[in-house]
Amino acid sequence: MEVTLQQLAQIIGGNVYGNVNDKVSNIATIDKAGKGDLTFIANKKYLKYLKNTEATAVIIEEHVKDAKVNQIEVENPYLAYAKILTFFTSSKPNFSGISEKAHVEQSVKFIKKESVSVYPFVYIGENTEIDENVILFPNVFIGKNVKIGSNVTVNSGVSIYDNSVIGNNVVIHSGSVIGSDGYGYAKDGDEYFKIPQVGNVVIEDNVEIGANVTIDRGAINSTVIRKGVKIDNLVHIAHNVEIGEHSAIVAQVGISGSSKIGKRVILAGQVGVAGHLKIGDGVKVGAQSGIGKDVKNDEIISGSPAVEHSKWLKWAVSYYKLPELLRRVKKLEKKIGEK
Amino acid sequence: MEVTLQQLAQIIGGNVYGNVNDKVSNIATIDKAGKGDLTFIANKKYLKYLKNTEATAVIIEEHVKDAKVNQIEVENPYLAYAKILTFFTSSKPNFSGISEKAHVEQSVKFIKKESVSVYPFVYIGENTEIDENVILFPNVFIGKNVKIGSNVTVNSGVSIYDNSVIGNNVVIHSGSVIGSDGYGYAKDGDEYFKIPQVGNVVIEDNVEIGANVTIDRGAINSTVIRKGVKIDNLVHIAHNVEIGEHSAIVAQVGISGSSKIGKRVILAGQVGVAGHLKIGDGVKVGAQSGIGKDVKNDEIISGSPAVEHSKWLKWAVSYYKLPELLRRVKKLEKKIGEK
Amino acid sequence: MEVTLQQLAQIIGGNVYGNVNDKVSNIATIDKAGKGDLTFIANKKYLKYLKNTEATAVIIEEHVKDAKVNQIEVENPYLAYAKILTFFTSSKPNFSGISEKAHVEQSVKFIKKESVSVYPFVYIGENTEIDENVILFPNVFIGKNVKIGSNVTVNSGVSIYDNSVIGNNVVIHSGSVIGSDGYGYAKDGDEYFKIPQVGNVVIEDNVEIGANVTIDRGAINSTVIRKGVKIDNLVHIAHNVEIGEHSAIVAQVGISGSSKIGKRVILAGQVGVAGHLKIGDGVKVGAQSGIGKDVKNDEIISGSPAVEHSKWLKWAVSYYKLPELLRRVKKLEKKIGEK
Repeated sequence: MEVTLQQLAQIIGGNVYGNVNDKVSNIATIDKAGKGDLTFIANKKYLKYLKNTEATAVIIEEHVKDAKVNQIEVENPYLAYAKILTFFTSSKPNFSGISEKAHVEQSVKFIKKESVSVYPFVYIGENTEIDENVILFPNVFIGKNVKIGSNVTVNSGVSIYDNSVIGNNVVIHSGSVIGSDGYGYAKDGDEYFKIPQVGNVVIEDNVEIGANVTIDRGAINSTVIRKGVKIDNLVHIAHNVEIGEHSAIVAQVGISGSSKIGKRVILAGQVGVAGHLKIGDGVKVGAQSGIGKDVKNDEIISGSPAVEHSKWLKWAVSYYKLPELLRRVKKLEKKIGEK
Repeated sequence: MEVTLQQLAQIIGGNVYGNVNDKVSNIATIDKAGKGDLTFIANKKYLKYLKNTEATAVIIEEHVKDAKVNQIEVENPYLAYAKILTFFTSSKPNFSGISEKAHVEQSVKFIKKESVSVYPFVYIGENTEIDENVILFPNVFIGKNVKIGSNVTVNSGVSIYDNSVIGNNVVIHSGSVIGSDGYGYAKDGDEYFKIPQVGNVVIEDNVEIGANVTIDRGAINSTVIRKGVKIDNLVHIAHNVEIGEHSAIVAQVGISGSSKIGKRVILAGQVGVAGHLKIGDGVKVGAQSGIGKDVKNDEIISGSPAVEHSKWLKWAVSYYKLPELLRRVKKLEKKIGEK
Repeated sequence: MEVTLQQLAQIIGGNVYGNVNDKVSNIATIDKAGKGDLTFIANKKYLKYLKNTEATAVIIEEHVKDAKVNQIEVENPYLAYAKILTFFTSSKPNFSGISEKAHVEQSVKFIKKESVSVYPFVYIGENTEIDENVILFPNVFIGKNVKIGSNVTVNSGVSIYDNSVIGNNVVIHSGSVIGSDGYGYAKDGDEYFKIPQVGNVVIEDNVEIGANVTIDRGAINSTVIRKGVKIDNLVHIAHNVEIGEHSAIVAQVGISGSSKIGKRVILAGQVGVAGHLKIGDGVKVGAQSGIGKDVKNDEIISGSPAVEHSKWLKWAVSYYKLPELLRRVKKLEKKIGEK
């Protein structure tokens, strides 16, 4: 696909400096871009490449006068790059319709059967409803009474248990499990007696879920992932958790039962959140942190147990001095006659 | 399903205070329960709801005289709730028998074929034996020479490698892998030479395994999960590990090769256990802890590396004071003429 | 299978002390070995068993004169054991060819169709190329334009996304996901806008990948796993990561985007590596460590954040003394007239 710079400028709302009729057909990083390629500078340290790039055009935050290359000036080059890449790479599935090698229960309702792509070895259970433009890759399992919105892509090997509700424009990557039983038991002497988990999982619009994620169903009510949340790979979300709008949950995070995560929160990789906590809106948590109590809005915390990030930073550069400090204090104690 | 309070009292072994012929048909939390609902109070802080609840009956540890609601008095309300919920929600699979879309090798032995539910796209390998009332959801893989006990539910997308042995009343959630090769290599210069893993996995009765768990087969002998063990999601259990009866292994825990975990142990979320260790009976380990040496019976430990929990707690509230302490000691040293 | 000690000595390049015509048919650990068994001593602490073992032969680093058992002397007994075990246990798949219950797109190219084993419910997408002696277990998904080398085993339930390249002699365990989208978004106000991930994953020869691992495709270029790398279960490898030759990545490790791991690196269990870092060759990292900056060749580090391992060790045995130290310093301050 070849597009002119003018067309691109319209997609991303930018101003072209150079020849608006020049065409690009590919996207590349600035150190590798050649003729016919579009590239971008989202970080000032890459400006040094601007002078000698052979790219046909560069997306840039601020037009640079003495560069010979065509430039498209936009407020947020990285976002512009993402939008153009989406434009270039949007693809259609191999086929529309329902493979004869899939198993679809008779009571399944499709809003528009000819718009969906149900690959071989997909199983869809009773009374499930599936909206337009849904792609179900091979070996996907969908239980009973599930609702799936429009423009949803479920990659291979995903399991969606009974009664789950999936919004529009959701992407779920391979191997993820939506709606498995929460970890709930009542003690019966030395033994554990399983508490039936009769709630479900609700995933709102525009959520993306990585690979091999697990999201447990609510014990009685719902586990809820609000709109725009992005979940990385191998994340664990326990029963009754709620994650607020536009939060980012990075790989291998674990969130224990009934905790409520606010809006626009960032949990970095391998963070652990204990159960029944309230994490405020806008909170940012450093990698590998352990959260054991409620966190107020907009706090930035790190460590296990987590404290204010600035405090943690100071600890982090000094903690291995503790053994030396022990010796120094012992010496001081001797000097002033303490045992 | 409607049941009288009398019937319920029989199921859970309790005493009814109120009208034994009143009927309930649903279970709800006490803040939401209405007419026809049964609810429970397992935690004293919810006693405040007792006065105004519109529930038809409340399961409670000790009968409260001045409350108008029907009450069923039992020793352990939470356990009673679990038992009643199990009674209310016990369901049967959609169908019995073996789907024509499953692949079952001829040599597979079913004890009672009409009692099992083998869904489409299930594969069962040679010489595998399957007992009564087993449910195998879609896309389950079962290798050769596997034994599966009675009343076992294997959810969609689970893989069970050759020679695994699964007891009775076991539940395995979606995406879990039983019997993958252990991580065993011999160094051959700079390279790793794979050591064939020829043992298996043995899972005893009443075990529940969460979603996307991995349990590796023994190198030569067996990896063993004893009866009643409950394993949460995304847990890693390496080769030759043994987990004692009625232990609870919470989400994202990793247990390295050949470690023996005692009975009634609790490993909280994201704990790591090094290899070749012995963790005693009744041990409790705090979240994110790292265990690098043997632990005696009934110890409670936390931290990485883990120490006595009470010690760790004191550390946890003071650790970020270390930078300040460094400054204070420096000042003291100056004062008394130390460098 | 019965083999003489002479035959075994040829396989592993060792010297027989004893009767070269004696035969063994099985391998066992030295405490359990009996007549007809071969065993090995890789660790000197097991030499005590040598005198009374009933094994037919023992693989040993240095011949022991006064032991009656046959001995095969080799430089590296553990490696020798691995090689003999491989010889004893090498097995063939149940069948060769392509199951009628698999779904193989017409454009798929097999180099030698009769040498592969494609089990039921395997899906192979358009234009994928598959070399000799490849085994694809049930419920494997392989996307479009994938290349798979010779002697590759892909266990049940694995997903391999479009454009992945898999080398020769690769083993992938169940539930692993190769080529899922990297976690890449551009901020668009409060929301995240997805950056299409258009790179791929390249896995070189002799790599082994454990169960439920996730390896994301490159954002633009490739995520690369170099030859001989061994990856344990539940590991997360983000987009654009490169892992150098013969590195060992232990269970539940997470490696963030664009980090480059050197050759012969060992990352122990649950380690986290931040993004855009360079970890040198020969680096060893202790379990649960967190790496936030570049690491030079051959460093040994531990802790979160990670420091020199020797420093960390001293910290690890003293860290819980911090609360006591705080009290002692307070006392000192009082004594010498500090507030």
